[in-house]
Amino acid sequence: MDALGYYNGKWGPLDEMTVPMNDRACFFGDGVYDAAICYKKIIYLLDNHVDRFFNSAAFLEIKPDFSKDELKSILKDLAAKVDLDEVLVYWQLTRGTGRRNHAFPEGKPNLWVIIKAAKVADLDHKIKLITIEDTRFLHCNVKTLNLIPNVIAAQRAHEAGAHEAVFHRGNIVTECAHSNVHIIKDGKFITHPTDNLILRGIARGHLAQVCDRLGIPVEEREFTLDELFNADEILTSSTSTFGLSANSIDGKPAGGKAPELLRKIHDEIRADFSKATGYPKK
Amino acid sequence: MDALGYYNGKWGPLDEMTVPMNDRACFFGDGVYDAAICYKKIIYLLDNHVDRFFNSAAFLEIKPDFSKDELKSILKDLAAKVDLDEVLVYWQLTRGTGRRNHAFPEGKPNLWVIIKAAKVADLDHKIKLITIEDTRFLHCNVKTLNLIPNVIAAQRAHEAGAHEAVFHRGNIVTECAHSNVHIIKDGKFITHPTDNLILRGIARGHLAQVCDRLGIPVEEREFTLDELFNADEILTSSTSTFGLSANSIDGKPAGGKAPELLRKIHDEIRADFSKATGYPKK
Repeated sequence: MDALGYYNGKWGPLDEMTVPMNDRACFFGDGVYDAAICYKKIIYLLDNHVDRFFNSAAFLEIKPDFSKDELKSILKDLAAKVDLDEVLVYWQLTRGTGRRNHAFPEGKPNLWVIIKAAKVADLDHKIKLITIEDTRFLHCNVKTLNLIPNVIAAQRAHEAGAHEAVFHRGNIVTECAHSNVHIIKDGKFITHPTDNLILRGIARGHLAQVCDRLGIPVEEREFTLDELFNADEILTSSTSTFGLSANSIDGKPAGGKAPELLRKIHDEIRADFSKATGYPKK
Repeated sequence: MDALGYYNGKWGPLDEMTVPMNDRACFFGDGVYDAAICYKKIIYLLDNHVDRFFNSAAFLEIKPDFSKDELKSILKDLAAKVDLDEVLVYWQLTRGTGRRNHAFPEGKPNLWVIIKAAKVADLDHKIKLITIEDTRFLHCNVKTLNLIPNVIAAQRAHEAGAHEAVFHRGNIVTECAHSNVHIIKDGKFITHPTDNLILRGIARGHLAQVCDRLGIPVEEREFTLDELFNADEILTSSTSTFGLSANSIDGKPAGGKAPELLRKIHDEIRADFSKATGYPKK
């Protein structure tokens, strides 16, 4: 099987799976999710992802009817059923099932899992970015299923031949459509604070740890579009991209001015991933 | 059958219906919807609702593969299959089906319809309101499936024993969790302008028409929480509530100071609905 879907204990080939029309994902996007990269059955940083997932659920007052350990066990079992070395393990919890009515329904939440092909990022690859006004709600710290602005932004990037769209609220850069964004300037790693305007990315936290380890000062502060365009390096981070760097924003050359520092960071990221999962060293 | 579900041509009892796990409603809330009240097979203001639905879809660049007339015909046929006099006809269009990926998929969108019991509002009934900060995205003019803040607000109202939650951005009142809100003050009907912060409610437009007809001046302008608390009357409007008035906000008595004007408006609303659908006059 090259892609698997799971819903409340039932599983099968992803493209054949169905769910109840009355699941609240269907009309309210009423749920939270998380995802992790998996190499040869080892799900990378799974504890961190499961912790964040439980935090997202708590924020929306969705109460899992399983423990963290039970969830991890389910995810590992399912990941092992797909015949691919590199997969994305994605899961979501929706508030429950019931005829459409805004207020919370009685009953249990629904656990969904998707295992599908993924590709461990090649950190030598440079990506292109576009910028787009951030019109999202004020709960971007929660990993919810309300993702229309992210979808539209990602589509704009796709149409522009770019990999990601960088959101900004006025002049302040927040994050990307499906990753965080950071800059390196004058030897410092600068990243938006973890308030309600960005997701507390697991890869973002790992990048900051790596910088600490390398003696690179980490500044958690707002930065502007000007600072983005004039940064020495620009990094985006997500579960599947780790810390890809960009060489273009809105069609203009960008970054590329601190290649040695970037290489050190990338080497650490690669080493950590290889150590945890056995992924071949480059 | 007391409730019906429809998905791309297949239909059955709502609670037994399933949809593909890969429908983009399921992980992005990537779709738009609309709904209308129906009395004895007559769907009230259907043309207006279908026009708005096509506008919502166009805003998100979701392209219906059916005409407005074809949709109306489907909705009428389905509404006739449910053995109830008073039903809500709800429909949504999602961007399509495909393995989770932010950028738009190839292929057709998916049409969903739900027909279920509803109750034509008793306009003599007074409702209670609460207020809540409006933290939603900046596309509230589009009737999308990204409704988590609305769900949370409605739940807060429910917990407070209230009927609706009034959103405000700072001191400015916008709309409610699932209706518009308006005030009457000094003989005028005051309602938030139709910008990107509120939905252009069909019932809202109808209320403004009724006011015009009655010679009540309609002011489309922002109003504050203070004005809401001190209004002569407070009306909420939605497809199923028409123009219910409130007598309490956050536990404090409110409205009730222009009962004659309110009665005139309600009489006109009732008369219009009866004329269009044959609903018994009170």
